[in-house]
Amino acid sequence: MTEKIVLTGIKPTGDLHIGNYVGAIRPAISLIKESDILPRYFIADYHALTTMQNRKELHDRIYQIAAAWLAFGLDPEKVLFYRQSDVPEIFELSWILSCLASKGLLNRAHAYKAKVDENIANDRDPDNGVNMGLFNYPVLMAADILMFNTNLVPVGKDQIQHVEIARDIAEHFNKIYGETFTLPEALIEEETAVIPGLDGRKMSKSYGNVIPLFAEEKQLHKAIFRIKTDSKTPEEPKDPKTSTLFDIYRAFASEADIESLAKRYEEGIGYGEVKQILFDAVNEKLQEPRRQYNELINDTPKLDALLQRGAERARDYAHPFMQEIRNKIGRY
Amino acid sequence: MTEKIVLTGIKPTGDLHIGNYVGAIRPAISLIKESDILPRYFIADYHALTTMQNRKELHDRIYQIAAAWLAFGLDPEKVLFYRQSDVPEIFELSWILSCLASKGLLNRAHAYKAKVDENIANDRDPDNGVNMGLFNYPVLMAADILMFNTNLVPVGKDQIQHVEIARDIAEHFNKIYGETFTLPEALIEEETAVIPGLDGRKMSKSYGNVIPLFAEEKQLHKAIFRIKTDSKTPEEPKDPKTSTLFDIYRAFASEADIESLAKRYEEGIGYGEVKQILFDAVNEKLQEPRRQYNELINDTPKLDALLQRGAERARDYAHPFMQEIRNKIGRY
Repeated sequence: MTEKIVLTGIKPTGDLHIGNYVGAIRPAISLIKESDILPRYFIADYHALTTMQNRKELHDRIYQIAAAWLAFGLDPEKVLFYRQSDVPEIFELSWILSCLASKGLLNRAHAYKAKVDENIANDRDPDNGVNMGLFNYPVLMAADILMFNTNLVPVGKDQIQHVEIARDIAEHFNKIYGETFTLPEALIEEETAVIPGLDGRKMSKSYGNVIPLFAEEKQLHKAIFRIKTDSKTPEEPKDPKTSTLFDIYRAFASEADIESLAKRYEEGIGYGEVKQILFDAVNEKLQEPRRQYNELINDTPKLDALLQRGAERARDYAHPFMQEIRNKIGRY
Repeated sequence: MTEKIVLTGIKPTGDLHIGNYVGAIRPAISLIKESDILPRYFIADYHALTTMQNRKELHDRIYQIAAAWLAFGLDPEKVLFYRQSDVPEIFELSWILSCLASKGLLNRAHAYKAKVDENIANDRDPDNGVNMGLFNYPVLMAADILMFNTNLVPVGKDQIQHVEIARDIAEHFNKIYGETFTLPEALIEEETAVIPGLDGRKMSKSYGNVIPLFAEEKQLHKAIFRIKTDSKTPEEPKDPKTSTLFDIYRAFASEADIESLAKRYEEGIGYGEVKQILFDAVNEKLQEPRRQYNELINDTPKLDALLQRGAERARDYAHPFMQEIRNKIGRY
């Protein structure tokens, strides 16, 4: 069986919280371990420009995201790991592909349409606050995907359409200029694990209810002890299904430990004790990555060298392929 | 007085005719001779992709256009002369700028709007036949302009708005990230000379009434003798103001010769004789460029070397400037 090229883009935005780890980082890192894939993970820093236009913020986020993924075990020898902005061929390809993408296709792209619908609902101009980067984004994503002959793109349901756009553009190119691009397919992620935040709603930066991923032990402890609970006394039996603490625990503990805590819930257990158990479980999983993260984030030269190496490997692929593409379109 | 950087893009589309020479090539070549400018002329080959998606055609057009401009005296030592596609920094910059360009700005761009209006008038979907390259084109043009810190962009009236878009985007970038780009200005061309074609209407490929620029003498002679005239006899006095032959002659002859032919019109002259006079005047101006064109178009290695040298000089400028831009946006 031939290996499949799997491409994952990582947008360097926002402070990481444990929800990002459970919902995105952990499944992506475990995917790497599958034997029949060739994983390519990139930091979509130029994609981030559509929403982040702050010099220091972009810079710092890139290093933070690189350090985070490496800290959780992304092995840059096994995974082609690079910054999008280090592969200029992607932007050249993006222009070429834009000439093959009908505007109508992009008018119907979900992310753009969601923004338009929101504007209309608020009595604003439909394109209010929409920049061309946001509108063009599916074309850039197509370039990201096609530049590396990607077979599979792991995406949530809301991103399937973007992979289909990439596929459409690839088919169109192949038809006009001859077989060139691999047709990518969406690898639809199983319901990604969503954990609740401090207030019981989905953990999300926009709700301000997050537990930071690399908080020091003390801060982590404090955050976990701030999680809202109901007013049941320790002795009362409790339903783990309606407990925020239990939901988070589920994402960090073993099957056996989850079962044993469920039993304690039914027998009656104080929330203080649950919080301590939860803290221990979370902290156990995070302490080593946290140590590595702190080491990396303070060793910019090491990160630079790793990213540089990734850039070289990515260009070793992209550069000759771009020459082939140029040749196909008439630049020979 | 400091020299002004003047940028002109040349789209490699269509067969060249003598109207292109009179209206575009000649004024652009004579502009180069002004002492206070630093001219940069580029072949907009990737811009052409918005309408030309044919491998051999793109390839051939690029060489034809390069040979034509060189044949008419573009000195690649004085003028930075390069292919757009040889400067990948332009496409990277185009993406960056797209994130600073509001979609509303592009919705109002004339070239796009003209297409939409035409679709609506024909009861078609407004975006029928519009690809993203066409819609994005003013952003690419902004990148072309800003990449070289252009001061002046010679344009016809219909393109002024595109230079304003580039200026808007530059101002926006400078405001967010600090002074980086020179603000370009449109250098509005005086009414560019328009000459009539074989049938008296404006010479244009779409009317099928052109006189090819590099036709061999015989073909040129034949074409000129096919120009429509009225049925006046040789002896009748004629009005040069309503004569297609005279209009074309005006673009190729000296003041004195123009005056003398006008006199002959008033006295009465046969159209056959006028055609011969016109042929001689046109042929005199075109024979040397034609010879050089034929030499160059058959010497691909020489053209390649010239374009390669232009590419290197363009990148000597674009590459370090791109590093500066990357640094400004957070990729340091």
